[in-house]
Amino acid sequence: MSGARIRLGMVGGGQGAFIGGVHRIAARLDGRFDLVAGALSADPARAKASADELGIARSYSDYAEMARAEAARPDGIQAVAIVTPNHLHLPVARAFLQAGIHVICDKPLTATLPEAEELARIAKASEALFILTHTYAGYPMIREARRLVAAGALGQIRVVQVEYAQDWLARPESGKQAEWRTDPARSGEGGAVGDIGSHAAHLACYVSGQPITEVAAELTAFVEGRRVDDNAQALLRFAGGARGMLWASQVAPGFDNDIRLRVMGTEAGLEWNHATPNLLRFTRLGEPAQTLTRGGPGFQGAARVPAGHPEGYLEAFATLYAGAADAITAGALPEDLPGIDAGLEGMRFIAACIYSSRANGQWQRLG
Amino acid sequence: MSGARIRLGMVGGGQGAFIGGVHRIAARLDGRFDLVAGALSADPARAKASADELGIARSYSDYAEMARAEAARPDGIQAVAIVTPNHLHLPVARAFLQAGIHVICDKPLTATLPEAEELARIAKASEALFILTHTYAGYPMIREARRLVAAGALGQIRVVQVEYAQDWLARPESGKQAEWRTDPARSGEGGAVGDIGSHAAHLACYVSGQPITEVAAELTAFVEGRRVDDNAQALLRFAGGARGMLWASQVAPGFDNDIRLRVMGTEAGLEWNHATPNLLRFTRLGEPAQTLTRGGPGFQGAARVPAGHPEGYLEAFATLYAGAADAITAGALPEDLPGIDAGLEGMRFIAACIYSSRANGQWQRLG
Amino acid sequence: MSGARIRLGMVGGGQGAFIGGVHRIAARLDGRFDLVAGALSADPARAKASADELGIARSYSDYAEMARAEAARPDGIQAVAIVTPNHLHLPVARAFLQAGIHVICDKPLTATLPEAEELARIAKASEALFILTHTYAGYPMIREARRLVAAGALGQIRVVQVEYAQDWLARPESGKQAEWRTDPARSGEGGAVGDIGSHAAHLACYVSGQPITEVAAELTAFVEGRRVDDNAQALLRFAGGARGMLWASQVAPGFDNDIRLRVMGTEAGLEWNHATPNLLRFTRLGEPAQTLTRGGPGFQGAARVPAGHPEGYLEAFATLYAGAADAITAGALPEDLPGIDAGLEGMRFIAACIYSSRANGQWQRLG
Amino acid sequence: MSGARIRLGMVGGGQGAFIGGVHRIAARLDGRFDLVAGALSADPARAKASADELGIARSYSDYAEMARAEAARPDGIQAVAIVTPNHLHLPVARAFLQAGIHVICDKPLTATLPEAEELARIAKASEALFILTHTYAGYPMIREARRLVAAGALGQIRVVQVEYAQDWLARPESGKQAEWRTDPARSGEGGAVGDIGSHAAHLACYVSGQPITEVAAELTAFVEGRRVDDNAQALLRFAGGARGMLWASQVAPGFDNDIRLRVMGTEAGLEWNHATPNLLRFTRLGEPAQTLTRGGPGFQGAARVPAGHPEGYLEAFATLYAGAADAITAGALPEDLPGIDAGLEGMRFIAACIYSSRANGQWQRLG
Repeated sequence: MSGARIRLGMVGGGQGAFIGGVHRIAARLDGRFDLVAGALSADPARAKASADELGIARSYSDYAEMARAEAARPDGIQAVAIVTPNHLHLPVARAFLQAGIHVICDKPLTATLPEAEELARIAKASEALFILTHTYAGYPMIREARRLVAAGALGQIRVVQVEYAQDWLARPESGKQAEWRTDPARSGEGGAVGDIGSHAAHLACYVSGQPITEVAAELTAFVEGRRVDDNAQALLRFAGGARGMLWASQVAPGFDNDIRLRVMGTEAGLEWNHATPNLLRFTRLGEPAQTLTRGGPGFQGAARVPAGHPEGYLEAFATLYAGAADAITAGALPEDLPGIDAGLEGMRFIAACIYSSRANGQWQRLG
Repeated sequence: MSGARIRLGMVGGGQGAFIGGVHRIAARLDGRFDLVAGALSADPARAKASADELGIARSYSDYAEMARAEAARPDGIQAVAIVTPNHLHLPVARAFLQAGIHVICDKPLTATLPEAEELARIAKASEALFILTHTYAGYPMIREARRLVAAGALGQIRVVQVEYAQDWLARPESGKQAEWRTDPARSGEGGAVGDIGSHAAHLACYVSGQPITEVAAELTAFVEGRRVDDNAQALLRFAGGARGMLWASQVAPGFDNDIRLRVMGTEAGLEWNHATPNLLRFTRLGEPAQTLTRGGPGFQGAARVPAGHPEGYLEAFATLYAGAADAITAGALPEDLPGIDAGLEGMRFIAACIYSSRANGQWQRLG
Repeated sequence: MSGARIRLGMVGGGQGAFIGGVHRIAARLDGRFDLVAGALSADPARAKASADELGIARSYSDYAEMARAEAARPDGIQAVAIVTPNHLHLPVARAFLQAGIHVICDKPLTATLPEAEELARIAKASEALFILTHTYAGYPMIREARRLVAAGALGQIRVVQVEYAQDWLARPESGKQAEWRTDPARSGEGGAVGDIGSHAAHLACYVSGQPITEVAAELTAFVEGRRVDDNAQALLRFAGGARGMLWASQVAPGFDNDIRLRVMGTEAGLEWNHATPNLLRFTRLGEPAQTLTRGGPGFQGAARVPAGHPEGYLEAFATLYAGAADAITAGALPEDLPGIDAGLEGMRFIAACIYSSRANGQWQRLG
Repeated sequence: MSGARIRLGMVGGGQGAFIGGVHRIAARLDGRFDLVAGALSADPARAKASADELGIARSYSDYAEMARAEAARPDGIQAVAIVTPNHLHLPVARAFLQAGIHVICDKPLTATLPEAEELARIAKASEALFILTHTYAGYPMIREARRLVAAGALGQIRVVQVEYAQDWLARPESGKQAEWRTDPARSGEGGAVGDIGSHAAHLACYVSGQPITEVAAELTAFVEGRRVDDNAQALLRFAGGARGMLWASQVAPGFDNDIRLRVMGTEAGLEWNHATPNLLRFTRLGEPAQTLTRGGPGFQGAARVPAGHPEGYLEAFATLYAGAADAITAGALPEDLPGIDAGLEGMRFIAACIYSSRANGQWQRLG
């Protein structure tokens, strides 16, 4: 597929960043992208040093200049990965979308809901595609869960319980990662609810097939001096009548990056945990619980290696990039790939949680 | 200890009942009680048949008559186990307490909050003791968790997540058990929130050492025609500033009787699951997670068999009976044994959840 | 059932013993025995003190005298529990069997194979029954596994892997328990292979339905100065052509009392672990793995409490006592209750392992 | 690092192969190799079609021709990945090693021990490097286990239990994979013992730091008509005095690709399972069990993503390729990368098992 490799650029992700490196491995894993240009830092020297270290041919320090220059080249990038702090997603995405370059953007969509609405307008007006890297939607067993729900294997969905817990912010933050993620100006007004709650909310909807319509939330900043929430708890109402709960915490000792999703219907239930991502517990009422596996009996998804050979986070992320490659080839997103709508929905969720919490937990409609 | 065995009676628990049999095994397991009298049914013939089958010497069909007669005998019962449907807890307990006979009562305390308040007044006025069988408080690792929290091993408690899920009412109920437990007249206005949510709330407080002060709840009756909730979701605020969530469901396919409690503080976290009751996950910030075991290194509680020999539900229940025996011998409840206050607190929790849910999730103070 | 309670005696199990207390709880749990006589110690004062502490009416210090006296009383014991060190099993059992009193004996059957053969002759000649408390055969899911194999659900059995690991003898022994269990004169020539390997071998045969015909064993005494093996590893050949492995260790750090049994046939496999005794993993070729539960869908065994309410070691032990009560009532052992044959088979296994190990692992036939 | 990318070739791995695709992803994941030449099939048309599909610039159908041609080019490959059936490892490796091209070879080393000895002589005489892809040695927690043992954290090693179980050959084989792996002419005389037992034996030695010196084995071909063993069971003696067991099975229903390694010493034990490869259970005598995690507290290895973000099989494989890149750059293998010695040791293990089994389980020395 070398001949057909998609030329990729990257904005953000210079030395010291976390998610940029993940995007690069993900883009490389299936051999469908070549990373050929980057604005890895706003500082030209650091941008250049990072690009050199990574063997990226063309280095920029200004994303707008990069968008213009790449759009003008016959061998310019076809897609750009945006891995900056959240407040830059809008301007960077705008620049590339308007230059006709496809965007693969990290989540959450933007720092604020108005920004998200503007980006949604721009994306919908553009012929370039917009892909949002909701990592966990790339896990094969999450997609299998989604397929089972859509196929009616659970009956009518009643209850959706989702949680995403970490402990890395249990003490006052230090370090580059922690700083921008707890700075409302760069990350947005949501702390845990934005950074990881948005993932959890997306998973709940992605698998259940039901949008969240209302939330009643309690956001707390436990660590003294913290400017955003570090623990978010919410009751959820879904479009199809399901009821749910969401917990997102960055102050939960013993939780590295634990996600648990449970979806229960009239006929059966499903449970998925990030710690064992290749398994899905499937329980039909009145029958023994089944453990479904990636690649195992009944599995209808795609897998790179057979059952019993664990795939993980990087493979899930790579699956989003494979989807992006398919999308770019086909000119449209496959139905299982999160795009601008999922991003906007996520920002509405965050905003509604913040609003509800400020209103002492009053139920708040999304959007 | 045969000479010192406590003479026990039982009200309720005739043929076809579930919890009565559990109480009988629990009373027998440590050899500290002799079950010598019973009003196992209001129907004299059934009462007699049940008593005969169980080898119970003295059978009554009227609990009031039993209280009078036993109080008058020199070899009359010293304590009575009440295992009737909830709406009978008050009159039965009153009869025995006022006859000076100690009461060991199943939970929840009563069917309604006013009944609970009345029973609390009676119990406090009585010289007889009142013990509430919150089963899960008898599990050694729950007590170990409580001890660790009290000793400060977790630092200041921030988050308490508790859940109790079953699936046996996922379809329209049938059978004696299901019928009374979903009948507001016999069980109370709370369905799942009363039957199992009260257990979950008790565990949350028992281990965290913090009373729940406010709840914001969403109670749902998913099964058509059901008169009480079968799924309860609530946000919790605790006296010490902790924030929590509680989920109690009887319509969760794949959950037999699953309880999960997580308590997280500034320094460490704890997790306990009913499916593996002899373990406790203990996670200090910045250290590898530890698996504490009943009887294992550091364990300070009591255990009947060494580490690696699983104890279960009946042993936990028996531990409450052993506590009751200690209490009766000492004339006062040990601090780790649930009594009338825990019962009243549980009823306040149920009432607050019902009120909050009817008020569309408005935060509601307990009591 | 009080009127029908079986009068029970006990030999051994005085103050400081472990397994005696377990037998007493097991006998009490289902209310089918009354412990009325005991020779709890050979020292009359200690025997009396122990009996008084336990409320046992008649105390003896000489088991032979006890057998004679009890056999002569109209209200004498009907059965005796033998919980002495292994070398006393033969003389004590002989005394009671010859007095016509049923014997419930702890395992292994005796200290040596010749003793076992003699006891087998005595037991078969006696009208009194002989029951061996192979605890793990009392676990409901072990019996369910046995039933599934017998029903052909696994097809033809190919592989049986069993292990039993502890760590309590990883260092030079101290304490009463450790001392007699590592003393060849009291425990027998087998150390780990006798104390716990015999349990593992029994489980393998009990579930697979196939006797072990040959072993090739490596017994090791890792702890300096230890007179018996503390780690036993063996290859197994079964009567039906299955091949197996057995590991029994008392020097395995991190293992409290862990037993794992896996039985695999042409059509399906089973796995059981002592740490989660209420579950059984059942895997049909080409189908998702199922988790069978005690009391759950498809379960055909007996359970005291519903699925989701864990039963443990004491309940398993009590189930053997319930079986013993059934046997005494019926005059014959139910087919799922280990008796003299299982005991003799276990001793043959131990002897064959010792012989094989001394012959540098040469395959050795049992019996 | 693009400028420094190593030019890689591949022999084998055309359409329909499994492990070839794994090697390609592994080589790509960290961006340190460019796959530029291949002899993917002996059939020129299929070789070309496979190469085109993969975007490989230079296609050969004859590996000897490829070795000559690439050695002669200034931009010829620096290393070759050999992913053919086992019987071709020797001739292919010889061709490339003698052409001065580094070899990255799949395991087991060869089909027979004499071939392995010859390859070892060639490799040692060559200036080119030889790397053997014992996948599981690339798992971070396996390396952490090895480090802990080497650092003395377990004390003196006593017991090593290892197993590797699959079920994909439980029925008569069909398909390309199954055919060559059960054909002695292509795979070697060992079936399960060679294909997966060699992995298990390597892990046991890699982590324990002790070579296996003797085996007593029982190899069985359960499936009718199978020409090689499909179930291997062995007792192990290690150089340092440890005793072990190894089970390798391809007829174990319910096991996809399950590996479990337990290493126990005088002071502590370790357990690793392939199903949860990011965890390591670490149990010091007399302390609570710890769960060590990749990236978590105390971890000293390398990881691509933080704790809580699962890495899997492909990352482990990629870590071997990263090690190969380091080795090629440095001119020598890092100490944690399996090479020709590990390969020869593995073949000695297989041969000794076959010999022992044929001699009815007699202990057989390796080498």
